[in-house]
Amino acid sequence: MAQKPSIPKGTRDFSPVEVAKRNYISSIMKHHFEVFGFQPIETPSFENSETLMGKYGEEGDRLIFKILNSGDYLDKVSQDELSNIEYKKLTTKISEKALRYDLTVPFARYVVQHQNEIEFPFKRYQIQPVWRADRPQKGRFREFFQCDADVVGSTSLWQEVELVQLYDAVFTQLGLGGATIKINNRKILSGIAEVIGAKDKLIDFTVALDKLDKIGEDGVKKEMLEKGISASAIEKVQPLFQFTGTVSEKIEKLNQLLASSEEGKKGVEELQFICETVEKLGLQTALIDLDVTLARGLNYYTGAIFEVTAPQVAMGSIGGGGRYDDLTGIFGLKNMSGVGISFGLDRIYLVLEELGLFPDTVTATSKALFINYGNQESLYAMEAISKLRRSGIKVELYPDAAKIAKQFQHADKRGIPFAVIAGESEMKENIFGLKNLVTGEQVKLDFEGLKGALI
Amino acid sequence: MAQKPSIPKGTRDFSPVEVAKRNYISSIMKHHFEVFGFQPIETPSFENSETLMGKYGEEGDRLIFKILNSGDYLDKVSQDELSNIEYKKLTTKISEKALRYDLTVPFARYVVQHQNEIEFPFKRYQIQPVWRADRPQKGRFREFFQCDADVVGSTSLWQEVELVQLYDAVFTQLGLGGATIKINNRKILSGIAEVIGAKDKLIDFTVALDKLDKIGEDGVKKEMLEKGISASAIEKVQPLFQFTGTVSEKIEKLNQLLASSEEGKKGVEELQFICETVEKLGLQTALIDLDVTLARGLNYYTGAIFEVTAPQVAMGSIGGGGRYDDLTGIFGLKNMSGVGISFGLDRIYLVLEELGLFPDTVTATSKALFINYGNQESLYAMEAISKLRRSGIKVELYPDAAKIAKQFQHADKRGIPFAVIAGESEMKENIFGLKNLVTGEQVKLDFEGLKGALI
Repeated sequence: MAQKPSIPKGTRDFSPVEVAKRNYISSIMKHHFEVFGFQPIETPSFENSETLMGKYGEEGDRLIFKILNSGDYLDKVSQDELSNIEYKKLTTKISEKALRYDLTVPFARYVVQHQNEIEFPFKRYQIQPVWRADRPQKGRFREFFQCDADVVGSTSLWQEVELVQLYDAVFTQLGLGGATIKINNRKILSGIAEVIGAKDKLIDFTVALDKLDKIGEDGVKKEMLEKGISASAIEKVQPLFQFTGTVSEKIEKLNQLLASSEEGKKGVEELQFICETVEKLGLQTALIDLDVTLARGLNYYTGAIFEVTAPQVAMGSIGGGGRYDDLTGIFGLKNMSGVGISFGLDRIYLVLEELGLFPDTVTATSKALFINYGNQESLYAMEAISKLRRSGIKVELYPDAAKIAKQFQHADKRGIPFAVIAGESEMKENIFGLKNLVTGEQVKLDFEGLKGALI
Repeated sequence: MAQKPSIPKGTRDFSPVEVAKRNYISSIMKHHFEVFGFQPIETPSFENSETLMGKYGEEGDRLIFKILNSGDYLDKVSQDELSNIEYKKLTTKISEKALRYDLTVPFARYVVQHQNEIEFPFKRYQIQPVWRADRPQKGRFREFFQCDADVVGSTSLWQEVELVQLYDAVFTQLGLGGATIKINNRKILSGIAEVIGAKDKLIDFTVALDKLDKIGEDGVKKEMLEKGISASAIEKVQPLFQFTGTVSEKIEKLNQLLASSEEGKKGVEELQFICETVEKLGLQTALIDLDVTLARGLNYYTGAIFEVTAPQVAMGSIGGGGRYDDLTGIFGLKNMSGVGISFGLDRIYLVLEELGLFPDTVTATSKALFINYGNQESLYAMEAISKLRRSGIKVELYPDAAKIAKQFQHADKRGIPFAVIAGESEMKENIFGLKNLVTGEQVKLDFEGLKGALI
């Protein structure tokens, strides 16, 4: 292979610094997931195709990575069949497995498969990669991690309250004070559809309303009319065009607006409980906002809908989720309500990077490099190194007795802050020279002194 | 979907308890990898096929999972080509990507691709899943994790010394005292081949010699003769049939045996340095043993060869590794010597399970379940819960105001040791009832008392 090797488009190598920073984020998530009572599960990277196909719509099916059957996969395909076969049809004959597309469908499959071992309500978290054959672009990858926390087996709204608190806990610890948790309710959207007398126009309606900031009230109304929403329907939901104020004020407006819709009123009631309870309990640094245009995966959620945006940085959502009343129905287990949230690891990484919020300690490498003066001296050095390591202190021996300048340069390039001089004279005196590579200062220490200085 | 969903054969779901136990093992590995100066990298789950194919032999190629190109992958395959096409040929036309088969080849690819960003010698560790289309059987899976630590860019034998110490550190902390690190050297094997005058018979020779315990000296010699190794050749290596004693004694025997082989003597010299240095520095609980039949991946390693077996449990190897002088040559970067070791996570798990070595704390769930008496009381409970969680204490509210017996049963089934009673009367007194679910004992505490009891 003459040319430099590469990796498939949309995938990434992670360098030590990148892994350390990603682990910093995911370890904070894990900590809070567990403090909130969520338990980790892991599912296989590939599932039987029938588990995944048809669960994400036609577009989703197309974006699922399929795995070729192993061995002679053409064995059972006759030459007749191969003639003029359409690729989708051939896929079903030569591929039985596919890479995980998200964590929600595998979770639903897990719950149904293991229902007899699970104690409900079941709070699980899962941090694993997923794969999508999407066109790669800035911030969109073909392999990326999802970080999900879901509860299944209870319709209690206390879970929505807790999930808002969970977002608050994670983003507060990450230093992302001022993250905005937008909240809506699918039932409110259905209520609006009822009120405007056009259930089928709901997506057009919310998409248009979402542009209020950009194109103004007249622009939005124009778009709605173009999409076939009647003027009288638009008139009925006029308050949505001045939809500002506190959460309580917004709830009041919605109550009036949706007075004629049972489902809408139920949605407002749910939203009110969640928002008021969150307010009573208090958030540490996050803000909560009622956003009636929020519709993520409209056909998926049945109750609360969440989305989080970062403070100060234009990045799109860094988290999202909601309630889906029939999580496991697709696998034949009815009446299992689920509610969950997801954290966007890649975007959170970019936000922290942009705001300079990664602590320096995250990427800390070894504390000291012992200079290698040859095998005799290295044995002396390694005795100290072994003892230091057993105390959990990260130290290294330069493996070769290379030129001293080269060894110091190695420490410098690696960002190692100290060099330890353990040459012939130090050996005789049973001491160590400790050189601070930032200040250039050098001191002589016995082993205990060295340990004290590096701990 | 009427029938219960399932997962592909050879793959696994991991329950919360299993994930916790696996994380316990891998976090101990990570700790010591980092203390020893290794840095984490991660590579994509799938690589370009050309990166993987041809690197693991014909059998390996067959076991690599191939991914179907996305979209209409038949678009560029003419009907003519499809006629009587052989499946391997078709694969190259419809699949460009494949799932990672091990971590070594992707690491070599990483080093070559990023050579200008890497400061050598480069000590990296990597803990990620790999996939093989092997026939699944007990302890062998189609998706499993590899945990590798490698150094690239130095031929120093100090690295072999450190890797032995690293095994010792990890297995000691896991409580696996008495793990045996078997060590050999490829150059010694080559030397033996030279001495018996049959380089091509080396594998037959070591395989036969390895059966000494089972079939005795006569049996081994009989097998060797059957494999075409001459009686005079066998005579020359007679000392290998009484190959017992301390490491020093074995080294002495090898020195005599291989006196006529330059390569063999070099191998003994390397082995001697590693074993003697390890001995001088001392191991905590592991044992080191020179095993001249050890040959793992004979065509792969060029220097030291390692293999670890667990104490007390018959499990095969729980780790292995060695030196490969031309790690990155397959990708065009010459003269990059690498040496590394691998830990067998799945087998280590089974060994710890069998020996009862997982600490109870590993699978600790929430500390207390707050009983739900309704929304009013739950708000009172949730105020306390929020404060406890901010102090890192794992507590939960039962989400529904279900029957009290059912809630206690939930705590019991989940293994939660305490229940907190925060009903109407506790609210009035601004206290909490703390019930020990093991002893049944119940006390009344104010918030600070509760926190103190649960911390």
